[in-house]
Amino acid sequence: MGCAIVVSEPSVLQDLASMLRAGDGADVTFVVGGRSFPAHRCVLAARSAVFRAELFGPMKEKAATRVKVDNMEPSIFEAPLCFVYTDTLPDGDGGVATDDDKDRNVPMQHLLVAADRYGLDRLRLMCEVGMCHSIDADTVATTLALAEQHRCMQLKNACLGFIASRGMLGAVVQTSGFCHLVESCPLVLLEILDKLASLGM
Amino acid sequence: MGCAIVVSEPSVLQDLASMLRAGDGADVTFVVGGRSFPAHRCVLAARSAVFRAELFGPMKEKAATRVKVDNMEPSIFEAPLCFVYTDTLPDGDGGVATDDDKDRNVPMQHLLVAADRYGLDRLRLMCEVGMCHSIDADTVATTLALAEQHRCMQLKNACLGFIASRGMLGAVVQTSGFCHLVESCPLVLLEILDKLASLGM
Repeated sequence: MGCAIVVSEPSVLQDLASMLRAGDGADVTFVVGGRSFPAHRCVLAARSAVFRAELFGPMKEKAATRVKVDNMEPSIFEAPLCFVYTDTLPDGDGGVATDDDKDRNVPMQHLLVAADRYGLDRLRLMCEVGMCHSIDADTVATTLALAEQHRCMQLKNACLGFIASRGMLGAVVQTSGFCHLVESCPLVLLEILDKLASLGM
Repeated sequence: MGCAIVVSEPSVLQDLASMLRAGDGADVTFVVGGRSFPAHRCVLAARSAVFRAELFGPMKEKAATRVKVDNMEPSIFEAPLCFVYTDTLPDGDGGVATDDDKDRNVPMQHLLVAADRYGLDRLRLMCEVGMCHSIDADTVATTLALAEQHRCMQLKNACLGFIASRGMLGAVVQTSGFCHLVESCPLVLLEILDKLASLGM
């Protein structure tokens, strides 16, 4: 028999986003640069091995309800927190650029660091994709250093390929990012040379 | 610049399903017919106003960690619990039939009752769709009684339309379900007559 009943869309992710926004039933609060983020231990632990260890690990007080986060801006912390609940990033600032939105390159670098810190591999890959799309001569050395420090192999390979592409090296070595790369990851220079050699330059 | 990095699929729902299965970080346990179901108060409250009232309402002990569920089979309770975490039903028994799988009609009726009890409107609609697809002369009166008792207007209209379709009434009035309907919801008989009248019979 025909049936005209319309079933609404699934809403778990929206319900979790509302729960995060309202802080309903929160049992832990992260304090980041003076701002408080109420959250839910079980969700954090289900989504990240790092949060699981922090909140339920044998070394931690099980009843710890306030967790101070050092070395991170509140606006950066907000993004991985939202990602934990919804698999997406908050609207507005801190979002992963879907195309060559270079203005977002800097927050995305911070976001990648945060994703790595909390073991959010999918978010890290999303950042790698965003940064990969916005590689240019000015930023590639900085991006390469970051990729090296956070073991982003695919982003690193994209950077090496870009630097070794014809006529690019001259512009790249003059950037301040390249100085930073030389200081922070000197062994990567060898990989740039290998890449150039493999391309017959 | 092209980018070959592949980002994995979103995994919030799988992660929540694992959390439910393992009971990790559970802070409430439902006891249903001798079986225990560990769960997470914040997720339940985010997804259902009924659970929210039960677990966080002013009338309840906030620290209640064991909740006894009466008048429900464990196998039935499992389905709405899974739905709360994932917006889908567990595989195997208790699932909503996607086509005319009449063997599942009885558990789906129980599921609809459970969905109504916990205020899970989308699950209730899914049950209505499943039951709507399996309406036949033998079961339509029972389904109509259930639709009436749980305010499922769309399923009720589908049942009325089926009963009033040409040549169907004779078979329906001979079923035991029709006796049950007469006893439990006698006013619906008037609606059947109205339906027949509106179709010019």
